[in-house]
Amino acid sequence: MACEKGEGDVVLLDFWASPFGQRVRIALAEKGVAYEYREEDLANKSRMLLEMNPVHKKIPVLVHGGKPVCESLIIVQYIDEVWAHPNPLLPTEPYPRARARFWADFIDKKIYDCGTRLWKLKGEALQEAKKEMICILKLLEGELGDKKYFGGDAFGFVDVALVPFTSWFYTYETSAGFSVEEECPKLAAWAKRCAEERESVRKTLYDPQKIYEFVGLLKKKFGVE
Amino acid sequence: MACEKGEGDVVLLDFWASPFGQRVRIALAEKGVAYEYREEDLANKSRMLLEMNPVHKKIPVLVHGGKPVCESLIIVQYIDEVWAHPNPLLPTEPYPRARARFWADFIDKKIYDCGTRLWKLKGEALQEAKKEMICILKLLEGELGDKKYFGGDAFGFVDVALVPFTSWFYTYETSAGFSVEEECPKLAAWAKRCAEERESVRKTLYDPQKIYEFVGLLKKKFGVE
Repeated sequence: MACEKGEGDVVLLDFWASPFGQRVRIALAEKGVAYEYREEDLANKSRMLLEMNPVHKKIPVLVHGGKPVCESLIIVQYIDEVWAHPNPLLPTEPYPRARARFWADFIDKKIYDCGTRLWKLKGEALQEAKKEMICILKLLEGELGDKKYFGGDAFGFVDVALVPFTSWFYTYETSAGFSVEEECPKLAAWAKRCAEERESVRKTLYDPQKIYEFVGLLKKKFGVE
Repeated sequence: MACEKGEGDVVLLDFWASPFGQRVRIALAEKGVAYEYREEDLANKSRMLLEMNPVHKKIPVLVHGGKPVCESLIIVQYIDEVWAHPNPLLPTEPYPRARARFWADFIDKKIYDCGTRLWKLKGEALQEAKKEMICILKLLEGELGDKKYFGGDAFGFVDVALVPFTSWFYTYETSAGFSVEEECPKLAAWAKRCAEERESVRKTLYDPQKIYEFVGLLKKKFGVE
């Protein structure tokens, strides 16, 4: 790795397919921070995970100098504060900072839950979740507008918060029968741009087909037909 | 008011009993920011609220120089960044900042929902919610420890996030049959200390009896016996 800062001292407890964990991996890559990645078996969580996040017992956890930071958006802000350069993620002025936090929080509150309903539910409940997902994505597209990234010319906090979900889009589309590209062409172009232009994203995200297969396993686990 | 900064330029859309709105009122008071308070009728929301928070359509909204900031913890951070002095709320170092954000987020994710279950549910579901609330409060008491405030010697971000719920404690206790003072004596002492020593808290919070009566109205509205 080009930049060795942090190595040995930074450990990430994570699970490969987690969009929340991927946020942290992308932020660390943007900053050039070397770290030790530890894959968790979520069916049999490590003692370290339970000790480092006794409240939520969830990945991702960033352990820096032996001290844990939990909850993905809090971790990304921590990374942005500790390693301010290169590639600052949050804007410097209070108003755009609040606005970036608002949209990242919106993504947190809406996408994962609605996406889970897309592959878990059937019939009318599925149609409702589909309508809701399209509405969520259109709101995000409205915020993106004609900008290159949510952060403007620079890839930023909202981009980091949302981009891991783009490799779940194929699963959402296939489960619910819609096309992100047709509904939200600018958002689809943004997703492609992130994957093509940001090495941090390209090396972190998985093939959408692999996520689809993973969700197939989840469906079996939860007895979804 | 001693300090006139912000007056005319700062408007708060809010609802008197909202613990989320109270966070913002306490933060503004800590900073000595004058503002125009506009009470919303939540059954008939104002055009301004719908325009200023079209995504969530919820109070509180802080409108500063005509621009809206939404979501209470994001507003409190915004206030802390715009009016850094007096009384900084978030610590300056990244690790304690992340820790304060973690506990404020924990409060956001847990207390209001669990508290609502306490006055809405009966029987086994109520007993489960009661157990959960005691567990939540004990975790918070663990984080407080022997400190004066969650922020240490200084009243800070986590104190602002939690203290509005203390005037709901009486409702929670009465609905579920437990005593915060018996279960969490340090937390109860902290609540008393905040009300006695912080003018911002004293002038913002309502008599617990008034909150109890308000919840009585909510119960009627939702058909809870």
